[in-house]
Amino acid sequence: MIKAVIFDYDGTLANREKGACSAYRAYLKNFVIKEKIDDVHFEALVQDLLLWDEFGAGNKKYMIERFNNKHGYSINHDHLINWWIENLGIYEPLFENTLKTLDYLKGKYKLGIITNGTKLAQNTKIDCTNIRHYFDSIVISGEFGKHKPDVSIFEEALRQLDVLPHEAIYVGDSFYNDVLGAYNAKIKPIWIWCDDGKYNLDSTKRIFKIEDLMEIL
Amino acid sequence: MIKAVIFDYDGTLANREKGACSAYRAYLKNFVIKEKIDDVHFEALVQDLLLWDEFGAGNKKYMIERFNNKHGYSINHDHLINWWIENLGIYEPLFENTLKTLDYLKGKYKLGIITNGTKLAQNTKIDCTNIRHYFDSIVISGEFGKHKPDVSIFEEALRQLDVLPHEAIYVGDSFYNDVLGAYNAKIKPIWIWCDDGKYNLDSTKRIFKIEDLMEIL
Repeated sequence: MIKAVIFDYDGTLANREKGACSAYRAYLKNFVIKEKIDDVHFEALVQDLLLWDEFGAGNKKYMIERFNNKHGYSINHDHLINWWIENLGIYEPLFENTLKTLDYLKGKYKLGIITNGTKLAQNTKIDCTNIRHYFDSIVISGEFGKHKPDVSIFEEALRQLDVLPHEAIYVGDSFYNDVLGAYNAKIKPIWIWCDDGKYNLDSTKRIFKIEDLMEIL
Repeated sequence: MIKAVIFDYDGTLANREKGACSAYRAYLKNFVIKEKIDDVHFEALVQDLLLWDEFGAGNKKYMIERFNNKHGYSINHDHLINWWIENLGIYEPLFENTLKTLDYLKGKYKLGIITNGTKLAQNTKIDCTNIRHYFDSIVISGEFGKHKPDVSIFEEALRQLDVLPHEAIYVGDSFYNDVLGAYNAKIKPIWIWCDDGKYNLDSTKRIFKIEDLMEIL
Protein backbone atom coordinates (compact mmCIF):
# COMPACT_ATOMS: atom_id res chain seq x y z
CA MET A 1 0.00 0.00 0.00
CA ILE A 2 1.35 3.42 -0.94
CA LYS A 3 1.69 5.67 2.10
CA ALA A 4 4.00 8.40 0.79
CA VAL A 5 4.47 10.40 -2.39
CA ILE A 6 7.88 11.99 -2.81
CA PHE A 7 8.58 14.62 -5.46
CA ASP A 8 11.49 16.18 -7.22
CA TYR A 9 11.07 19.98 -7.22
CA ASP A 10 12.49 21.60 -10.40
CA GLY A 11 10.68 20.47 -13.54
CA THR A 12 8.25 18.37 -11.49
CA LEU A 13 6.37 20.62 -9.06
CA ALA A 14 7.75 23.89 -10.43
CA ASN A 15 8.18 25.00 -14.02
CA ARG A 16 11.94 25.22 -14.08
CA GLU A 17 12.09 25.93 -17.83
CA LYS A 18 9.81 28.93 -17.51
CA GLY A 19 11.81 30.12 -14.51
CA ALA A 20 15.15 29.65 -16.22
CA CYS A 21 13.86 31.43 -19.30
CA SER A 22 12.73 34.47 -17.28
CA ALA A 23 15.91 34.41 -15.21
CA TYR A 24 18.22 34.30 -18.25
CA ARG A 25 16.24 37.13 -19.82
CA ALA A 26 16.62 39.23 -16.67
CA TYR A 27 20.31 38.40 -16.32
CA LEU A 28 21.15 39.26 -19.93
CA LYS A 29 19.16 42.50 -19.70
CA ASN A 30 20.68 43.63 -16.43
CA PHE A 31 24.27 42.50 -16.69
CA VAL A 32 25.31 41.46 -20.20
CA ILE A 33 23.70 43.28 -23.09
CA LYS A 34 24.33 46.97 -23.10
CA GLU A 35 23.63 47.79 -26.75
CA LYS A 36 20.22 48.14 -28.47
CA ILE A 37 19.04 44.77 -29.72
CA ASP A 38 15.71 43.72 -31.21
CA ASP A 39 13.39 41.14 -29.61
CA VAL A 40 14.18 38.23 -31.92
CA HIS A 41 17.95 38.63 -31.62
CA PHE A 42 17.59 38.94 -27.85
CA GLU A 43 15.39 35.85 -27.64
CA ALA A 44 17.86 33.85 -29.74
CA LEU A 45 20.52 34.54 -27.09
CA VAL A 46 18.13 33.46 -24.31
CA GLN A 47 17.22 30.26 -26.17
CA ASP A 48 20.86 29.35 -26.73
CA LEU A 49 21.44 29.58 -22.97
CA LEU A 50 18.34 27.47 -22.30
CA LEU A 51 19.52 24.81 -24.73
CA TRP A 52 22.99 24.59 -23.21
CA ASP A 53 21.61 24.76 -19.69
CA GLU A 54 20.06 21.31 -20.35
CA PHE A 55 17.12 21.65 -17.96
CA GLY A 56 19.57 22.56 -15.22
CA ALA A 57 21.84 19.56 -15.79
CA GLY A 58 24.32 21.42 -17.97
CA ASN A 59 27.79 22.47 -16.91
CA LYS A 60 27.42 26.24 -16.42
CA LYS A 61 31.12 26.86 -17.01
CA TYR A 62 30.95 25.21 -20.43
CA MET A 63 27.66 26.99 -21.18
CA ILE A 64 29.21 30.38 -20.44
CA GLU A 65 32.28 29.55 -22.52
CA ARG A 66 30.11 28.60 -25.49
CA PHE A 67 27.98 31.70 -25.08
CA ASN A 68 30.92 34.08 -24.85
CA ASN A 69 32.68 32.45 -27.82
CA LYS A 70 29.65 32.26 -30.09
CA HIS A 71 28.11 35.63 -29.30
CA GLY A 72 31.11 37.74 -28.30
CA TYR A 73 29.96 38.67 -24.79
CA SER A 74 31.80 38.16 -21.53
CA ILE A 75 29.55 36.63 -18.91
CA ASN A 76 31.47 36.12 -15.67
CA HIS A 77 31.05 32.63 -14.23
CA ASP A 78 31.05 33.43 -10.50
CA HIS A 79 28.76 36.41 -10.92
CA LEU A 80 26.18 34.39 -12.87
CA ILE A 81 26.31 31.46 -10.43
CA ASN A 82 25.86 33.64 -7.35
CA TRP A 83 23.06 35.64 -8.95
CA TRP A 84 21.41 32.42 -10.13
CA ILE A 85 21.40 30.81 -6.67
CA GLU A 86 19.77 33.86 -5.12
CA ASN A 87 17.35 34.70 -7.91
CA LEU A 88 16.09 31.66 -9.82
CA GLY A 89 13.45 31.01 -7.14
CA ILE A 90 11.94 34.42 -7.71
CA TYR A 91 11.28 33.56 -11.35
CA GLU A 92 10.27 29.91 -11.08
CA PRO A 93 6.49 29.40 -10.82
CA LEU A 94 4.66 26.22 -9.90
CA PHE A 95 3.09 24.28 -12.75
CA GLU A 96 -0.50 25.30 -13.29
CA ASN A 97 -2.04 22.36 -11.42
CA THR A 98 0.58 21.68 -8.76
CA LEU A 99 -1.47 23.18 -5.91
CA LYS A 100 -4.60 21.34 -7.03
CA THR A 101 -2.62 18.10 -7.10
CA LEU A 102 -1.02 18.68 -3.69
CA ASP A 103 -4.41 19.59 -2.21
CA TYR A 104 -5.79 16.32 -3.56
CA LEU A 105 -2.89 14.27 -2.15
CA LYS A 106 -2.55 16.02 1.24
CA GLY A 107 -4.16 13.98 4.00
CA LYS A 108 -4.27 10.86 1.81
CA TYR A 109 -0.47 10.42 1.76
CA LYS A 110 2.62 11.67 3.54
CA LEU A 111 4.33 14.07 1.15
CA GLY A 112 8.03 14.71 0.59
CA ILE A 113 10.52 16.50 -1.64
CA ILE A 114 14.03 15.42 -2.60
CA THR A 115 15.82 18.12 -4.55
CA ASN A 116 19.36 18.61 -5.84
CA GLY A 117 20.88 22.05 -5.35
CA THR A 118 22.30 24.40 -2.75
CA LYS A 119 20.47 24.93 0.53
CA LEU A 120 19.92 28.61 -0.23
CA ALA A 121 18.74 28.15 -3.81
CA GLN A 122 16.30 25.35 -3.07
CA ASN A 123 14.90 26.88 0.11
CA THR A 124 14.38 30.19 -1.71
CA LYS A 125 12.46 28.41 -4.46
CA ILE A 126 10.25 26.48 -2.05
CA ASP A 127 9.49 29.58 0.01
CA CYS A 128 8.80 31.73 -3.06
CA THR A 129 6.06 29.31 -4.12
CA ASN A 130 4.70 28.95 -0.58
CA ILE A 131 4.33 25.17 -0.54
CA ARG A 132 6.48 24.18 2.44
CA HIS A 133 3.44 23.46 4.62
CA TYR A 134 2.31 20.61 2.35
CA PHE A 135 5.39 18.52 3.09
CA ASP A 136 6.35 16.18 5.91
CA SER A 137 9.94 16.02 4.69
CA ILE A 138 12.15 18.14 2.45
CA VAL A 139 15.64 16.85 1.70
CA ILE A 140 18.04 19.18 -0.11
CA SER A 141 21.24 17.65 -1.50
CA GLY A 142 23.38 20.68 -0.61
CA GLU A 143 22.36 20.26 3.01
CA PHE A 144 22.32 16.47 3.16
CA GLY A 145 25.73 16.04 1.54
CA LYS A 146 24.81 13.63 -1.28
CA HIS A 147 22.83 14.34 -4.41
CA LYS A 148 20.47 12.25 -6.52
CA PRO A 149 20.80 9.61 -7.90
CA ASP A 150 22.72 8.53 -4.77
CA VAL A 151 20.58 5.98 -2.95
CA SER A 152 21.32 7.48 0.48
CA ILE A 153 19.35 10.67 -0.22
CA PHE A 154 16.27 8.60 -1.09
CA GLU A 155 16.79 6.54 2.06
CA GLU A 156 16.98 9.73 4.13
CA ALA A 157 13.59 10.84 2.78
CA LEU A 158 12.08 7.43 3.59
CA ARG A 159 13.54 7.66 7.11
CA GLN A 160 12.08 11.13 7.68
CA LEU A 161 8.70 10.00 6.34
CA ASP A 162 8.93 6.75 8.33
CA VAL A 163 7.90 4.52 5.40
CA LEU A 164 9.46 1.54 3.64
CA PRO A 165 10.61 1.77 0.00
CA HIS A 166 7.64 -0.21 -1.36
CA GLU A 167 5.27 2.11 0.52
CA ALA A 168 6.44 5.15 -1.45
CA ILE A 169 6.39 6.42 -5.00
CA TYR A 170 8.79 8.99 -6.37
CA VAL A 171 7.96 11.48 -9.15
CA GLY A 172 10.67 13.28 -11.12
CA ASP A 173 11.60 14.55 -14.57
CA SER A 174 15.29 13.61 -14.83
CA PHE A 175 15.63 10.03 -15.94
CA TYR A 176 19.14 9.68 -14.55
CA ASN A 177 18.74 11.49 -11.22
CA ASP A 178 15.13 10.74 -10.46
CA VAL A 179 13.98 7.55 -12.16
CA LEU A 180 17.22 5.62 -11.83
CA GLY A 181 17.82 6.97 -8.32
CA ALA A 182 14.39 5.93 -7.05
CA TYR A 183 14.66 2.57 -8.83
CA ASN A 184 18.00 1.83 -7.16
CA ALA A 185 16.46 2.76 -3.81
CA LYS A 186 13.60 0.28 -4.52
CA ILE A 187 11.02 3.06 -4.66
CA LYS A 188 8.57 2.96 -7.56
CA PRO A 189 9.60 5.75 -9.96
CA ILE A 190 7.18 7.81 -12.03
CA TRP A 191 8.73 9.82 -14.85
CA ILE A 192 7.14 13.18 -15.65
CA TRP A 193 8.09 14.35 -19.12
CA CYS A 194 5.94 16.41 -21.47
CA ASP A 195 7.60 15.56 -24.80
CA ASP A 196 6.12 12.35 -26.16
CA GLY A 197 8.96 12.09 -28.65
CA LYS A 198 10.96 10.36 -25.97
CA TYR A 199 10.89 6.61 -25.61
CA ASN A 200 8.52 5.25 -23.03
CA LEU A 201 10.04 2.45 -21.02
CA ASP A 202 7.30 -0.09 -20.32
CA SER A 203 8.53 -0.80 -16.83
CA THR A 204 8.47 2.85 -15.76
CA LYS A 205 5.19 4.71 -15.40
CA ARG A 206 5.13 8.01 -17.20
CA ILE A 207 2.95 11.09 -16.78
CA PHE A 208 2.86 14.19 -18.97
CA LYS A 209 1.62 16.71 -16.40
CA ILE A 210 1.62 16.78 -12.62
CA GLU A 211 -2.19 16.58 -12.42
CA ASP A 212 -2.09 13.23 -14.24
CA LEU A 213 -0.82 11.86 -10.94
CA MET A 214 -4.32 12.15 -9.49
CA GLU A 215 -5.56 9.67 -12.05
CA ILE A 216 -2.99 6.98 -11.42
CA LEU A 217 -2.97 7.14 -7.62
CA MET B 1 0.26 36.92 -50.18
CA ILE B 2 2.00 33.76 -49.04
CA LYS B 3 3.10 31.61 -51.99
CA ALA B 4 5.63 29.28 -50.35
CA VAL B 5 6.00 27.36 -47.10
CA ILE B 6 9.54 26.32 -46.21
CA PHE B 7 10.32 23.82 -43.47
CA ASP B 8 13.18 22.75 -41.34
CA TYR B 9 13.38 18.93 -41.35
CA ASP B 10 14.62 17.52 -38.00
CA GLY B 11 12.27 18.32 -35.13
CA THR B 12 9.82 20.01 -37.49
CA LEU B 13 8.64 17.50 -40.11
CA ALA B 14 10.36 14.50 -38.54
CA ASN B 15 10.48 13.43 -34.92
CA ARG B 16 14.20 13.82 -34.38
CA GLU B 17 13.98 13.10 -30.62
CA LYS B 18 12.28 9.78 -31.20
CA GLY B 19 14.81 8.97 -33.92
CA ALA B 20 17.78 9.96 -31.79
CA CYS B 21 16.42 7.94 -28.87
CA SER B 22 16.06 4.79 -31.01
CA ALA B 23 19.43 5.38 -32.64
CA TYR B 24 21.29 5.83 -29.34
CA ARG B 25 19.61 2.71 -28.02
CA ALA B 26 20.73 0.73 -31.06
CA TYR B 27 24.25 2.15 -30.93
CA LEU B 28 24.73 1.40 -27.23
CA LYS B 29 23.35 -2.14 -27.69
CA ASN B 30 25.44 -2.96 -30.74
CA PHE B 31 28.74 -1.25 -30.01
CA VAL B 32 29.13 -0.10 -26.42
CA ILE B 33 27.48 -2.19 -23.73
CA LYS B 34 28.70 -5.74 -23.60
CA GLU B 35 27.67 -6.68 -20.04
CA LYS B 36 24.19 -7.60 -18.75
CA ILE B 37 22.32 -4.49 -17.72
CA ASP B 38 18.68 -4.01 -16.70
CA ASP B 39 16.19 -1.83 -18.61
CA VAL B 40 16.21 1.15 -16.25
CA HIS B 41 20.00 1.37 -16.06
CA PHE B 42 20.18 1.05 -19.83
CA GLU B 43 17.56 3.74 -20.38
CA ALA B 44 19.37 6.08 -17.98
CA LEU B 45 22.43 5.88 -20.27
CA VAL B 46 20.28 6.58 -23.34
CA GLN B 47 18.62 9.56 -21.65
CA ASP B 48 21.96 11.05 -20.63
CA LEU B 49 23.06 10.96 -24.28
CA LEU B 50 19.76 12.53 -25.37
CA LEU B 51 20.17 15.33 -22.85
CA TRP B 52 23.73 16.13 -23.90
CA ASP B 53 22.87 15.77 -27.57
CA GLU B 54 20.72 18.90 -27.13
CA PHE B 55 18.21 18.11 -29.89
CA GLY B 56 21.10 17.67 -32.30
CA ALA B 57 22.74 21.00 -31.46
CA GLY B 58 25.21 19.55 -28.97
CA ASN B 59 28.90 19.05 -29.56
CA LYS B 60 29.18 15.29 -30.05
CA LYS B 61 32.84 15.27 -29.01
CA TYR B 62 31.98 16.84 -25.65
CA MET B 63 28.96 14.55 -25.31
CA ILE B 64 31.12 11.47 -25.81
CA GLU B 65 33.72 12.77 -23.34
CA ARG B 66 31.05 13.30 -20.69
CA PHE B 67 29.52 9.90 -21.35
CA ASN B 68 32.83 8.04 -21.17
CA ASN B 69 33.89 9.90 -18.01
CA LYS B 70 30.60 9.58 -16.16
CA HIS B 71 29.76 6.01 -17.09
CA GLY B 72 33.16 4.44 -17.70
CA TYR B 73 32.66 3.36 -21.30
CA SER B 74 34.79 4.19 -24.30
CA ILE B 75 32.68 5.36 -27.21
CA ASN B 76 34.90 6.21 -30.19
CA HIS B 77 34.11 9.60 -31.68
CA ASP B 78 34.71 8.85 -35.38
CA HIS B 79 32.90 5.54 -35.23
CA LEU B 80 29.80 7.08 -33.65
CA ILE B 81 29.76 10.02 -36.08
CA ASN B 82 30.05 7.83 -39.18
CA TRP B 83 27.43 5.39 -37.93
CA TRP B 84 25.15 8.28 -37.01
CA ILE B 85 25.32 9.91 -40.44
CA GLU B 86 24.42 6.66 -42.17
CA ASN B 87 21.83 5.40 -39.70
CA LEU B 88 19.85 8.17 -38.01
CA GLY B 89 17.52 8.42 -41.01
CA ILE B 90 16.51 4.80 -40.60
CA TYR B 91 15.27 5.51 -37.08
CA GLU B 92 13.70 8.94 -37.52
CA PRO B 93 9.97 8.84 -38.26
CA LEU B 94 7.79 11.71 -39.43
CA PHE B 95 5.56 13.33 -36.83
CA GLU B 96 2.13 11.75 -36.74
CA ASN B 97 0.40 14.40 -38.83
CA THR B 98 3.20 15.53 -41.14
CA LEU B 99 1.81 13.76 -44.22
CA LYS B 100 -1.70 15.05 -43.55
CA THR B 101 -0.29 18.58 -43.26
CA LEU B 102 1.81 18.28 -46.42
CA ASP B 103 -1.18 16.86 -48.32
CA TYR B 104 -3.22 19.85 -47.22
CA LEU B 105 -0.54 22.36 -48.25
CA LYS B 106 0.53 20.70 -51.53
CA GLY B 107 -1.04 22.47 -54.50
CA LYS B 108 -1.91 25.53 -52.40
CA TYR B 109 1.72 26.56 -51.86
CA LYS B 110 5.17 25.85 -53.20
CA LEU B 111 6.93 23.75 -50.60
CA GLY B 112 10.57 23.72 -49.55
CA ILE B 113 13.00 22.31 -46.99
CA ILE B 114 16.13 23.95 -45.59
CA THR B 115 18.08 21.55 -43.41
CA ASN B 116 21.46 21.63 -41.66
CA GLY B 117 23.58 18.48 -41.92
CA THR B 118 25.66 16.44 -44.28
CA LYS B 119 24.38 15.65 -47.78
CA LEU B 120 24.35 11.91 -47.05
CA ALA B 121 22.65 12.13 -43.65
CA GLN B 122 19.91 14.50 -44.73
CA ASN B 123 19.20 12.79 -48.06
CA THR B 124 18.99 9.44 -46.27
CA LYS B 125 16.47 10.86 -43.80
CA ILE B 126 14.30 12.42 -46.51
CA ASP B 127 14.34 9.25 -48.61
CA CYS B 128 13.59 7.00 -45.64
CA THR B 129 10.39 8.94 -44.96
CA ASN B 130 9.46 9.10 -48.64
CA ILE B 131 8.49 12.77 -48.77
CA ARG B 132 10.81 14.14 -51.46
CA HIS B 133 8.00 14.37 -54.02
CA TYR B 134 6.15 16.98 -51.95
CA PHE B 135 8.92 19.54 -52.32
CA ASP B 136 9.85 22.03 -55.02
CA SER B 137 13.18 22.76 -53.33
CA ILE B 138 15.39 21.01 -50.80
CA VAL B 139 18.51 22.84 -49.64
CA ILE B 140 20.99 20.90 -47.48
CA SER B 141 23.70 22.92 -45.75
CA GLY B 142 26.40 20.30 -46.31
CA GLU B 143 25.79 20.56 -50.04
CA PHE B 144 25.16 24.30 -50.23
CA GLY B 145 28.23 25.27 -48.20
CA LYS B 146 26.59 27.47 -45.54
CA HIS B 147 24.34 26.44 -42.70
CA LYS B 148 21.42 28.08 -40.93
CA PRO B 149 21.15 30.74 -39.53
CA ASP B 150 23.27 32.13 -42.40
CA VAL B 151 20.98 34.32 -44.51
CA SER B 152 22.39 32.99 -47.79
CA ILE B 153 20.88 29.52 -47.33
CA PHE B 154 17.42 31.06 -46.88
CA GLU B 155 18.01 33.20 -49.98
CA GLU B 156 18.98 30.10 -51.95
CA ALA B 157 15.67 28.45 -51.05
CA LEU B 158 13.75 31.58 -52.07
CA ARG B 159 15.65 31.62 -55.38
CA GLN B 160 14.87 27.96 -56.09
CA LEU B 161 11.20 28.51 -55.22
CA ASP B 162 11.15 31.77 -57.19
CA VAL B 163 9.43 33.77 -54.45
CA LEU B 164 10.23 36.96 -52.54
CA PRO B 165 10.92 36.89 -48.78
CA HIS B 166 7.53 38.35 -47.86
CA GLU B 167 5.81 35.69 -49.99
CA ALA B 168 7.20 32.87 -47.84
CA ILE B 169 6.91 31.58 -44.31
CA TYR B 170 9.48 29.41 -42.60
CA VAL B 171 8.72 26.79 -39.93
CA GLY B 172 11.40 25.42 -37.62
CA ASP B 173 12.08 24.29 -34.06
CA SER B 174 15.50 25.80 -33.33
CA PHE B 175 15.11 29.39 -32.21
CA TYR B 176 18.65 30.32 -33.14
CA ASN B 177 19.00 28.50 -36.47
CA ASP B 178 15.44 28.66 -37.71
CA VAL B 179 13.57 31.61 -36.22
CA LEU B 180 16.48 34.04 -36.13
CA GLY B 181 17.75 32.86 -39.53
CA ALA B 182 14.39 33.34 -41.25
CA TYR B 183 13.87 36.66 -39.50
CA ASN B 184 17.24 37.95 -40.71
CA ALA B 185 16.33 36.82 -44.24
CA LYS B 186 13.04 38.79 -43.92
CA ILE B 187 10.94 35.61 -44.08
CA LYS B 188 8.13 35.30 -41.54
CA PRO B 189 9.28 32.70 -38.98
CA ILE B 190 6.98 30.25 -37.22
CA TRP B 191 8.44 28.50 -34.21
CA ILE B 192 7.34 24.92 -33.57
CA TRP B 193 8.02 23.87 -29.99
CA CYS B 194 5.95 21.47 -27.92
CA ASP B 195 7.00 22.53 -24.43
CA ASP B 196 4.85 25.44 -23.29
CA GLY B 197 7.26 26.14 -20.46
CA LYS B 198 9.27 28.22 -22.87
CA TYR B 199 8.65 31.91 -23.25
CA ASN B 200 6.43 32.88 -26.14
CA LEU B 201 7.73 35.93 -27.97
CA ASP B 202 4.72 37.99 -29.06
CA SER B 203 6.30 38.92 -32.37
CA THR B 204 6.96 35.32 -33.39
CA LYS B 205 4.09 32.95 -34.16
CA ARG B 206 4.35 29.67 -32.36
CA ILE B 207 2.76 26.28 -33.02
CA PHE B 208 2.90 23.19 -30.82
CA LYS B 209 2.42 20.52 -33.49
CA ILE B 210 2.91 20.48 -37.24
CA GLU B 211 -0.82 20.07 -37.94
CA ASP B 212 -1.51 23.38 -36.16
CA LEU B 213 -0.04 24.97 -39.28
CA MET B 214 -3.23 24.14 -41.18
CA GLU B 215 -5.17 26.35 -38.80
CA ILE B 216 -3.01 29.44 -39.13
CA LEU B 217 -2.47 29.33 -42.90
